[in-house]
Amino acid sequence: MRALIILSAIFLCFTNNLSAQDMDKEKDAIIIKSIFDESLSNGTCYERLRSLCKDVGPRLSGSPGADKAVDWAVEQMEAMGFDKVYKQACMVPVWERGDKESCVIKSKYAKKEEPLNVCALGYSHATPKGGITAEVVKVNGIEEVKAMKAGALKGKIVFYNRPMDERMIETFDAYGGCVDQRSRGAIEAELKGAVGSIVRSMGLRNDDYPHTGTMAYGTEPMATIPAVAVSTKGADDLEAWLERDPELEIELKVNSRNLPDKESFNVIGEITGSEYPDRFIVVSGHLDSWDLAEGAHDDGAGVVHSLEVVQLFKQLDIRPKHTIRVVLFMNEENGTRGARKYAEEVKEKGEYHLVAIESDSGGFVPRGFCVEGTGILPMRMLTQISKWEELLEPYNLHRFKEDYSGVDIHLLKDQNFPLVGFYPDPQRYFDIHHTELDVFESVNKRELELGAASIASFVYLSDKYGILAPVKKMIPNNRKASDL
Amino acid sequence: MRALIILSAIFLCFTNNLSAQDMDKEKDAIIIKSIFDESLSNGTCYERLRSLCKDVGPRLSGSPGADKAVDWAVEQMEAMGFDKVYKQACMVPVWERGDKESCVIKSKYAKKEEPLNVCALGYSHATPKGGITAEVVKVNGIEEVKAMKAGALKGKIVFYNRPMDERMIETFDAYGGCVDQRSRGAIEAELKGAVGSIVRSMGLRNDDYPHTGTMAYGTEPMATIPAVAVSTKGADDLEAWLERDPELEIELKVNSRNLPDKESFNVIGEITGSEYPDRFIVVSGHLDSWDLAEGAHDDGAGVVHSLEVVQLFKQLDIRPKHTIRVVLFMNEENGTRGARKYAEEVKEKGEYHLVAIESDSGGFVPRGFCVEGTGILPMRMLTQISKWEELLEPYNLHRFKEDYSGVDIHLLKDQNFPLVGFYPDPQRYFDIHHTELDVFESVNKRELELGAASIASFVYLSDKYGILAPVKKMIPNNRKASDL
Repeated sequence: MRALIILSAIFLCFTNNLSAQDMDKEKDAIIIKSIFDESLSNGTCYERLRSLCKDVGPRLSGSPGADKAVDWAVEQMEAMGFDKVYKQACMVPVWERGDKESCVIKSKYAKKEEPLNVCALGYSHATPKGGITAEVVKVNGIEEVKAMKAGALKGKIVFYNRPMDERMIETFDAYGGCVDQRSRGAIEAELKGAVGSIVRSMGLRNDDYPHTGTMAYGTEPMATIPAVAVSTKGADDLEAWLERDPELEIELKVNSRNLPDKESFNVIGEITGSEYPDRFIVVSGHLDSWDLAEGAHDDGAGVVHSLEVVQLFKQLDIRPKHTIRVVLFMNEENGTRGARKYAEEVKEKGEYHLVAIESDSGGFVPRGFCVEGTGILPMRMLTQISKWEELLEPYNLHRFKEDYSGVDIHLLKDQNFPLVGFYPDPQRYFDIHHTELDVFESVNKRELELGAASIASFVYLSDKYGILAPVKKMIPNNRKASDL
Repeated sequence: MRALIILSAIFLCFTNNLSAQDMDKEKDAIIIKSIFDESLSNGTCYERLRSLCKDVGPRLSGSPGADKAVDWAVEQMEAMGFDKVYKQACMVPVWERGDKESCVIKSKYAKKEEPLNVCALGYSHATPKGGITAEVVKVNGIEEVKAMKAGALKGKIVFYNRPMDERMIETFDAYGGCVDQRSRGAIEAELKGAVGSIVRSMGLRNDDYPHTGTMAYGTEPMATIPAVAVSTKGADDLEAWLERDPELEIELKVNSRNLPDKESFNVIGEITGSEYPDRFIVVSGHLDSWDLAEGAHDDGAGVVHSLEVVQLFKQLDIRPKHTIRVVLFMNEENGTRGARKYAEEVKEKGEYHLVAIESDSGGFVPRGFCVEGTGILPMRMLTQISKWEELLEPYNLHRFKEDYSGVDIHLLKDQNFPLVGFYPDPQRYFDIHHTELDVFESVNKRELELGAASIASFVYLSDKYGILAPVKKMIPNNRKASDL
């Protein structure tokens, strides 16, 4: 009894010295620890990802796989007990790869035809049945082609060989530094008379896996020439062959086709907020993937991260004040039609978004979050997040910067909502991005679970404190208080 | 000309506003960027690791592989143009695994014998030719066995089944929380009469790869009973079988042997400091590995990280003021005889170490550094490092904490040197640690290169500024200045 009294006295002394905010910090620390503990020991995201990858598989917009993914997402949300589950219709492009592409080098110096490992880019048109055969013009980027005279590439196949800059720590910046060759290369080459386009894969490794990807977005003009990506090894081989024989020819066969647009869906689920049911915290990823693999990192990880936020809240009985809305976008990869539709409807309905969060950088070990927004929003977000750093640091979450948030939620930017991109470690992403290697087995269970817990913790703090640090009204220097 | 004058004027205005320290920061930033650029675009550590893994391979102390590794290391250092290359002799234990171990469950409920995937622990004695067969007693940790009465395990095989705590963010702490079952489990069980020991592998995944490891260090008493690790899947299977049939028996065959100690070597190379040739910055890893694989992460990564510091300095013509001493320790895995020898000689010769750095946590993406030392050394190191944070942050180096530095350099602690452990991301380490999966292919090139550049940058800053923030002499509160 005596010991109990002493203990109580010590406890009272201790708690009396704590401010309300400190007490909250202590509670927050306990809740965030429980989120991480739960994700690492009773998490469901890894098995859910297995199901998406193995039961659904590849799910390019407009394909039967994408239809299956929509059904899968609705089933998952219903089984998890979301308060509201619905589909949001949008028209998506339909592109089919057809039989596997082929590409061979024909040189007078080669004993036989030298094969290159290629894959068609999304939206690419087919070659004629027998393929096309033409000489190759190597360029080091799209600007070189833009500067050419009309007809300069007449009858040629252009070979874009600008590599990603391996010295960049931010691999997404290295990607951004040359992806225009893929997205706009064919159209620019066609304007100069080219009959085909080959682009060096957007990858940092030297390997033999070609990386597909889209050639155009939505309303942009489309190339009518066939366009493929060649593996980084293949690009180096082709470069070496061109050194030896500048007159060599390439034979390229592509069997793809573009079909009319088709209806598909974003899948949306909500947990209704207890205090502010009409204010939304969006947590999102995209449901579609490229056709070459299971889209495990891109963006199966984002899909299961988003669902797991709700799963963890349910398992831990965390009841958010705001409505948590999980949005699984359709058609991020080749058109962002789902995200456009979503942004339109938000505008029409005037739906208030406290914050929109996206996970579309893979299921790798978490590092932090990127913030994006108009005007001083990013600064106010970073000020707010800086108050949470102590809470997030034990989980190795250190990196909070103004940067691009994500392709889908970016379309909400002009509605002045605060946008947040989950930032996992980016070093391995472009080893697998848009290749046949992006399968379930390439995802590490713990890394995925840590990502889910990081996003759930961020949602917990945003729900409790808001994501924007308050701004004091200030008197401009050149005016007196009485003027205001 | 006019433009040049204006530019010069702008430059002068700019530089006049910078303090000497800012100027240095600017220069430091340029040099650190050049170190990362060089590592990522012209680095040699990945190919050097390939050579260590493929040309040398497994290299357990006392094995022909270890001899080969010593020769390899000397050759590498000589080819790289170190100023001084030498071997430091030490006696190492010799343990041979022999033919592959086997383990089967024999239960009256099983239609046939159920195999478990096991591997002998380092120093384990063999079973008799025909193996041993005995009932199994499952325990949840070493304390349970310590608390048993004498003879409580008579004739039994003990099964240590305490798992690593998957909720811990720091996986090395999770490892530390149950590795005593592996290192001390057999001896404790033998004291209670057990005839064999099976330990759940120190891994965080559920898979079928057993993790080997040492059972005793140096002068500790050794068990004479056979001891194996079972895969995590095997441990779960065995647990389930024991639920069904508590009287089941295990048949265990181990074919290892302990041989007399043998001479081996640390391999040491130096680049002589231009100003302080007798003050050393040690950069280290260990040359030996377990026998089941190529020791790519453990500790091939540390070996090539250490060599790459010198390689990068040479490629970039960075000339250190202090002597950079690369120490490749022998026998970290099962005895630390090399590190003991090194520490002894340092003491004998009174060699001053500015700092000792170790890389022995794998070749994963860098996060930061751990500091260790006696008294206020860690605090002074962290104060100094905090001045470098701005320089290291662009490379996602954020984590600087007081923590264990490394098994080998830890033995220098009582000589009051500042110790630093390279801290790569720890999430995937225990997926491969001490298993047959620790091969070259499990290492990511960029992650390895970023590690080498991180350590090289840290060495550059330590060489330039020292690793200890200066301490002002202070007057204790209860004394007057005149008393001092």
